[in-house]
Amino acid sequence: MIIGKVVGTVICTRKNSSLVGSKFLIVDPMEKMEIDGCDRIVAVDDVGAGIGELVLVATGSAARLGCGDPNSPVDACIVGIVDDPQKIVIVE
Amino acid sequence: MIIGKVVGTVICTRKNSSLVGSKFLIVDPMEKMEIDGCDRIVAVDDVGAGIGELVLVATGSAARLGCGDPNSPVDACIVGIVDDPQKIVIVE
Amino acid sequence: MIIGKVVGTVICTRKNSSLVGSKFLIVDPMEKMEIDGCDRIVAVDDVGAGIGELVLVATGSAARLGCGDPNSPVDACIVGIVDDPQKIVIVE
Amino acid sequence: MIIGKVVGTVICTRKNSSLVGSKFLIVDPMEKMEIDGCDRIVAVDDVGAGIGELVLVATGSAARLGCGDPNSPVDACIVGIVDDPQKIVIVE
Amino acid sequence: MIIGKVVGTVICTRKNSSLVGSKFLIVDPMEKMEIDGCDRIVAVDDVGAGIGELVLVATGSAARLGCGDPNSPVDACIVGIVDDPQKIVIVE
Repeated sequence: MIIGKVVGTVICTRKNSSLVGSKFLIVDPMEKMEIDGCDRIVAVDDVGAGIGELVLVATGSAARLGCGDPNSPVDACIVGIVDDPQKIVIVE
Repeated sequence: MIIGKVVGTVICTRKNSSLVGSKFLIVDPMEKMEIDGCDRIVAVDDVGAGIGELVLVATGSAARLGCGDPNSPVDACIVGIVDDPQKIVIVE
Repeated sequence: MIIGKVVGTVICTRKNSSLVGSKFLIVDPMEKMEIDGCDRIVAVDDVGAGIGELVLVATGSAARLGCGDPNSPVDACIVGIVDDPQKIVIVE
Repeated sequence: MIIGKVVGTVICTRKNSSLVGSKFLIVDPMEKMEIDGCDRIVAVDDVGAGIGELVLVATGSAARLGCGDPNSPVDACIVGIVDDPQKIVIVE
Repeated sequence: MIIGKVVGTVICTRKNSSLVGSKFLIVDPMEKMEIDGCDRIVAVDDVGAGIGELVLVATGSAARLGCGDPNSPVDACIVGIVDDPQKIVIVE
């Protein structure tokens, strides 16, 4: 998983029927956590995240398990909200 | 998922039998959304997208769920069309 | 999927038993279509591609669906041959 | 799999219900083993790893098999602890 | 799949129970075949490869099919040994 910050939203009225009702958030991975060299991804929100929050994002097939519908064409899902960014302990 | 712009099409007469009838569109990911450092991908279209439209693309195993045939050898699928590019709200 | 050009072959006599009979081709992704920043991949051929042809390659779990044996340890498969490279329409 | 060093932890009180009880560790891949050009990932710990230890991390769908719950939205899991970093033999 | 050279080994006494008995080899992808921009990976060996040999490596979910245990948390597996590196024909 990676940690990222919710920076935006995107709306698609025309979409795959199994995505109806999904909330799409735009997430910027934390420094050093860009996935696949990708600086920004669209993730479905499963935990009620809001703009500005730091979140845990699961990608790939794991995302479908996180979004509540295993048959949904989803490849990134917010599965947790980081309690306190200050509490992320990193000892290099 | 990533957001990208449909920039072209490609036609394959000889192809895997489960791909017969699929429409292949070439998509350029939005700035900062290149997947795997890949600046351009071929995606099957599930929602009736056209050249120039901004679309939501699911990749990996999620793509098969998006394209209507879970046994199709597809790794990228257009699953939504962005309503209004101006409405993509990004707060950095 | 990505579009690439078949540039070579590789032979493995000692291999996983479910790969016996598979044809391995070396494919160079088209400009801007490098997958995972990878400039060259080995793909199983499902459609009778030859050296020099432009092909459509599915990667990840999709590749197994493309190669005819869903239990084969294959992560890249040629699933189509591009009709006419000149007909790839790209409108940037 | 890749080899990395456990450098930190992250806590998410609000999270997907199947992640309750999971321990999230932050792992820095060993030199040359960055996955997807990603310099730091969050992995679930399955083997009792601690800060500073060198670990073996499985990613993608393999991670779910490593973390004990195949329905958990997990895409990276620590599946082994390297015995002795000095014993990693590399002959280039 | 990618082609790489076996350059080392790594030992993990404490590991996921389904990995007991697995041999972990460190593989350096061939030039231009780095996966996900990753210059070195740890792969389970299924075909009896040795240090210095050129091997075919399957990644992602395909690796589990290659390593004999579909429930093993493995994301990279050596599935073939290249017959003769001189016979890799590449026509650019």
